[in-house]
Amino acid sequence: MDEQSNVAAIPVGVVGLGLMGSSIVAALLISGHPVKAIAPIASDAENVHERIYTQLHYCQEAGLTDSDEDLKARLEISQDYAVLADCQVVIECVVEKLAVKSEVYRKITDVVSAECIIGSNTSALPISELQPYVSNPGRFLGIHWAEPAFMTRFLEITCGKLTMPVFAERIFTLAHQWGKEPTLLKKDIRGFITNRLMYAVYREIFYQMESGNATREDLDKVFRYDAGSWMTLMGVFRRMDYLGLKDYAAALDNIFPQLSNAAGVPEMMQVMVAETARGIHNDRGLYPYGPGEGKQWDEAFTRFNLEIHSLAAKYSEEQVKGHLYKL
Amino acid sequence: MDEQSNVAAIPVGVVGLGLMGSSIVAALLISGHPVKAIAPIASDAENVHERIYTQLHYCQEAGLTDSDEDLKARLEISQDYAVLADCQVVIECVVEKLAVKSEVYRKITDVVSAECIIGSNTSALPISELQPYVSNPGRFLGIHWAEPAFMTRFLEITCGKLTMPVFAERIFTLAHQWGKEPTLLKKDIRGFITNRLMYAVYREIFYQMESGNATREDLDKVFRYDAGSWMTLMGVFRRMDYLGLKDYAAALDNIFPQLSNAAGVPEMMQVMVAETARGIHNDRGLYPYGPGEGKQWDEAFTRFNLEIHSLAAKYSEEQVKGHLYKL
Repeated sequence: MDEQSNVAAIPVGVVGLGLMGSSIVAALLISGHPVKAIAPIASDAENVHERIYTQLHYCQEAGLTDSDEDLKARLEISQDYAVLADCQVVIECVVEKLAVKSEVYRKITDVVSAECIIGSNTSALPISELQPYVSNPGRFLGIHWAEPAFMTRFLEITCGKLTMPVFAERIFTLAHQWGKEPTLLKKDIRGFITNRLMYAVYREIFYQMESGNATREDLDKVFRYDAGSWMTLMGVFRRMDYLGLKDYAAALDNIFPQLSNAAGVPEMMQVMVAETARGIHNDRGLYPYGPGEGKQWDEAFTRFNLEIHSLAAKYSEEQVKGHLYKL
Repeated sequence: MDEQSNVAAIPVGVVGLGLMGSSIVAALLISGHPVKAIAPIASDAENVHERIYTQLHYCQEAGLTDSDEDLKARLEISQDYAVLADCQVVIECVVEKLAVKSEVYRKITDVVSAECIIGSNTSALPISELQPYVSNPGRFLGIHWAEPAFMTRFLEITCGKLTMPVFAERIFTLAHQWGKEPTLLKKDIRGFITNRLMYAVYREIFYQMESGNATREDLDKVFRYDAGSWMTLMGVFRRMDYLGLKDYAAALDNIFPQLSNAAGVPEMMQVMVAETARGIHNDRGLYPYGPGEGKQWDEAFTRFNLEIHSLAAKYSEEQVKGHLYKL
C-alpha cells in the first residue's frame, strides 16, 4: 500500500453488520475495495442483505456511485470467517463487550495473514485493553468512524500501546482514498479525542440546564446557530485566530473557574436510563416526541448529511488556501 | 410592537460602528427598519460610510436584498446623538470598557424616550453591572449578535437583574422578524450561554494539546468533521436523542472525571498575548500564517456564511417537523 494504493486490489473485511457496520461496508465499496462482510451472529445475519442494500441504494441516490449493482458485485456477505483469508485490513464493529470482541478477534486471526491490519470501530473501550486479544498485536488499532460512514469526512485512527506506527500510517494513507480527513493519534486517550471535546460540552450543558439557567431548547439553539455557523469551516483554534485572540486571555481567566467540574452522571440522564429511553428510536428522550416525530428527525438528518458533506468537502483547508473563494 | 410589528414604523439606533456595529446596521436595514447609526468617536466616523456600504453591497450580492440603494435610503449616519430621539430601540456596540459604555448610555438616555429599549451587544461585561448606568434600567438588556449579524440566525437576549420581562419579550418577538432563532435568558449568566458551552470546549482542547495527546490540527479536524457534521441540524441534546441515549450514562460516568478542570489561562494563550498575536488580522496566531493567508480564511468565511445560513434556515425545527425532507 503506497501513496496511491490500488484499492481494487485490497480486499477489506468488516465484522459486525449492524447500522454502523453496514454503513462502513458501503463506504469501503464506494472507495473501490472488494469487501467481505461477516455477520457474526444469527440475528445480525437475518436482514443483513436488506440493511446493506438500503445503504447502497441511498449512496446511489446521493450521487456517490453511478450504480449500486457495481458495488454489490464487489461485496461478499457471509457468516463464515474463512472468506476473510485474503483481506489486508479487517474492521471489527461488534457490540462494545470485551468478551464478544475478544472472541471475534480470535476468529479473525485464525484465518488472516499475520500482516493483516485489524481495526476496531470501538468508541468505548481503550485500544490498549483490546490489543492483547489479538495475535501479533502491533497490527491492531482503532479506526473510529462517524455515522453514516460513507458520508462523513471524520475518521479517528488511534494507536494502542503496542501498535506499530507503520500500520497506523498505512490506514492513514488509505483513509484519504476513502474521502476522509483522518486524524492519527499516537496515544490511546480514554474516550478518544472527539469524545473528550464533546463530553466537556455535555458536562457544561447539563449543568446549565439543571441550574435552571437556560432551557434545553435554548441551549441547543445557541449551539446550533452560533457554533454551528462556523464549526464546519474552522474548528476551535482557527476560530480563535479568526476572532483575533485579543480578548481571549482575560475571558478564559474569567470563565474557566466558573465552569462545571462535575464528575457524576447528570440526574436527567439517570432518569432517562431508568425509563429505558432510546431517544428518537422509541420516541422517548431528552425531548418529548409525538408519534413518528423521531422518524422525521432521522429523515431530516439523512438529507442534511448530504448537504453538509459536500459543504465540508468544498471548504477543505487545501481549498481555502488555494484561494478559491475570493469575492 | 405586537406579534407582526410594522418594522418600517420602528426606528432603531445603533451606537458604535466598528465591524460588528456595521453588520448590525445592515441586519436591521434588511429587516425593514429605519436605522440611525451613531459613530461616537472620530476615528470610527472616518471610514464609516465605506464600511457600512461594503456590508450592504455584500447583502445585495448574497441575495438578501434587491437593492442596496433602498437600504441606504432608510439609513442615517451621524455623530450627533440627537438623531436617536424617535428610536424605539437603541443597540450599543462600543468597546468593552465600562467607562466608555456608561458615557454612551448617558448620551443615549439624554435624547430618547423613557420607554426606548436599550440593548448592549457586550459579550464580556455582565448586563447587571452595566444596568445601573441607564436611567429607567428596566428597559436595559443584552442583545448579543453573531458576526456577520445579517447572516447568522443566532441572537442571545439576556436580562439583567433589573430588566423588566416585557421589554425582553418585545425584543424576542422582533428578533423573529430579523430572521433570528433567538434565545431569551432570564438570568444574567457570566459569559452568557453560548460562551459557557464553548469555553468548556476551550478548556479541554488546550488541555489535550498541552498534554501532547493530539496536535492543534487534529483537534480542529475532529471538531470540524465530527461535531460539524450534525451541529447545525441538531444541537447537543437532540444529538443524544438521535444516537439513542443507551450508552451515555456509562460513558459520562467514565469520562467526566477525566476532563480538565483547569482554572488558569493556558500557557499557549499567554504566549500569544505576549506576542500581540491577532490571529488572521496580523497573520500571527495559534496557527502559522503565510503572507495573505489570513485574508484567504476571511474570504472563505464570507462565502461559507452564505451557505451555512441558508442550510440552517432550510433545516429549522419547524421544517423538520413539517416533514419536508422525506426521502
